[in-house]
Amino acid sequence: MNHRKAPELQVSTWLNTPHPLSLEQLRGKVVLIEAFQMLCPGCVSHGLPQATRVAETFDPDEVAVLGLHTVFEHHKAQGSREALEAFLHEYRLRFPVGIDAPSPGGGVPRTMAAYAMRGTPTQILIDREGNLRRQSFGVEQDLVLGAAIARLLGATPAEQTDPPDAPDEGCDETGCAMPETSP
Amino acid sequence: MNHRKAPELQVSTWLNTPHPLSLEQLRGKVVLIEAFQMLCPGCVSHGLPQATRVAETFDPDEVAVLGLHTVFEHHKAQGSREALEAFLHEYRLRFPVGIDAPSPGGGVPRTMAAYAMRGTPTQILIDREGNLRRQSFGVEQDLVLGAAIARLLGATPAEQTDPPDAPDEGCDETGCAMPETSP
Amino acid sequence: MNHRKAPELQVSTWLNTPHPLSLEQLRGKVVLIEAFQMLCPGCVSHGLPQATRVAETFDPDEVAVLGLHTVFEHHKAQGSREALEAFLHEYRLRFPVGIDAPSPGGGVPRTMAAYAMRGTPTQILIDREGNLRRQSFGVEQDLVLGAAIARLLGATPAEQTDPPDAPDEGCDETGCAMPETSP
Amino acid sequence: MNHRKAPELQVSTWLNTPHPLSLEQLRGKVVLIEAFQMLCPGCVSHGLPQATRVAETFDPDEVAVLGLHTVFEHHKAQGSREALEAFLHEYRLRFPVGIDAPSPGGGVPRTMAAYAMRGTPTQILIDREGNLRRQSFGVEQDLVLGAAIARLLGATPAEQTDPPDAPDEGCDETGCAMPETSP
Repeated sequence: MNHRKAPELQVSTWLNTPHPLSLEQLRGKVVLIEAFQMLCPGCVSHGLPQATRVAETFDPDEVAVLGLHTVFEHHKAQGSREALEAFLHEYRLRFPVGIDAPSPGGGVPRTMAAYAMRGTPTQILIDREGNLRRQSFGVEQDLVLGAAIARLLGATPAEQTDPPDAPDEGCDETGCAMPETSP
Repeated sequence: MNHRKAPELQVSTWLNTPHPLSLEQLRGKVVLIEAFQMLCPGCVSHGLPQATRVAETFDPDEVAVLGLHTVFEHHKAQGSREALEAFLHEYRLRFPVGIDAPSPGGGVPRTMAAYAMRGTPTQILIDREGNLRRQSFGVEQDLVLGAAIARLLGATPAEQTDPPDAPDEGCDETGCAMPETSP
Repeated sequence: MNHRKAPELQVSTWLNTPHPLSLEQLRGKVVLIEAFQMLCPGCVSHGLPQATRVAETFDPDEVAVLGLHTVFEHHKAQGSREALEAFLHEYRLRFPVGIDAPSPGGGVPRTMAAYAMRGTPTQILIDREGNLRRQSFGVEQDLVLGAAIARLLGATPAEQTDPPDAPDEGCDETGCAMPETSP
Repeated sequence: MNHRKAPELQVSTWLNTPHPLSLEQLRGKVVLIEAFQMLCPGCVSHGLPQATRVAETFDPDEVAVLGLHTVFEHHKAQGSREALEAFLHEYRLRFPVGIDAPSPGGGVPRTMAAYAMRGTPTQILIDREGNLRRQSFGVEQDLVLGAAIARLLGATPAEQTDPPDAPDEGCDETGCAMPETSP
């Protein structure tokens, strides 16, 4: 299959990271880019919590999660570095976030334009070789996103043991445990 | 890697399917078995809705979803075929469901014992060759389950287009769309 | 205003209470009757948790919460005392629950018929004098139900202090606390 | 009982209203003031949606809902009128919102100080005579808030008919309707 190279990020400022990042540097990892605006309700309630879950679920040596602040409206209200810093702090977002570089004429910022994104939130998946493999706008289901990431990761073991949320005995809202049996 | 063959299902009655099912028959597909009890709150609120999402998300020619009613308590209340039929009807569960065959001495039913399940809900994943690859008790995250299924599916394309829940214009609770631009 | 006397309960069996209950006995309290069926999804996900919240929110000397199991379908599956006992146990429902007395000809049970209920869940509010004041079928909003109960309670103080879910410092998902200031 | 007069609002700018508002003007109505910050996660996920539900549930001639933007941190990020306007627009908040007047020395704004609020969200209830009757910081339950508002409203009829979310036939996630019966 022929895949299209993912356009490089054009970022004016990076937050939550000591060094600027690039897709070039991240070759070898699967990359999730979560494009958002801090005043986009669907980003706050769905896209960003999902990106946090991805960062917590997958091995950071295998999957890199990046936020991209793609401001295409309300530039004055949400376009400053201070506003974004405060937002990331209050919402406890820990992954690196880049501010998409503004276009000379205003309007849609550069990376957003290069990917022809239709709005926010947009989820972008890039494979280990730097190819753009999936781009979705709006609410993405966790089952679908988890499956898409795993496909790009390829053969990795990850057979897991029991998840943490299960009752020790009796029933609770997570399930019903069997009583211990005598031998 | 050496994998253990998944024990065959021991089912006394099948619902939601014209013919009895077996793992043997399902070779070639990835199989999700959702073991549940109709009076287990975590099964009703989490496990069974998740199994429904899996059945709706993946191609049924690739992934088979089965329910297994593993009654290990309150046999009188939830152990009858009529009770289970009513439950499946009211909760609109459409995938095939087998009633785990009771053990001669009562208590833990046969399939549940063969898999050494610890309670309900239990999610079991079986690969295309019939090997038991993953078993989890309690609340499983969709991201994790979606990734696990995709790993067993192996190389399948599934690069997708935009998901359905996105705004056409302006912002709603799913996201913010860019305004249409003149050419 | 003229109010209609609430028809007396016709209950074949009581659970979660040492003695049978009657509306007659409960004069002086506001009464919430939560009519439900154990296999009704909206009762399990909405009506019964709401009744539990009412029982936890209001003073039990002022507001009595009763469940009424009004089985009008799937009698065989959910009509037995054992089934209901198991259900109440697993869902940790603690308030008294009566089994609505079956009608001679089967079908709609007696109390349900006397109130002309249209289905489950049905929320019924009875004032301190035993009058039927409100009856609603389906999903009732907490704001509306809380207001309706308070109206029937009449003049009661209940000015409250801070609710428990608030941060001690900084922001969490419940709010943002002001930093302590030096005097 | 002796009640304390609620301190008058000190607002620098009003949004979502053609005229400035005051508690003085609102005598005769019960008033809910929802104090919030646009970058407070608990305000966005809980406090503001609850204020919207109150505005939609109660008669606007009886209950006035006001937002109060009480910025006590991140002044640069969330302190401008433009930022708040964009926020109200994107989150579709329709009730009048005042910007709490900044204190001369910075820090806690004036109305927030006058009420000795501890953080955001804070819910404040004022009775028809302008007395401060309830103030709570953090997550407030709808049942409790609905009851508190109804107590302040006093004797109002409001016996209601069936709520809208109920099935016409069969079961759905809101409930189970009885089948139509032949006469």
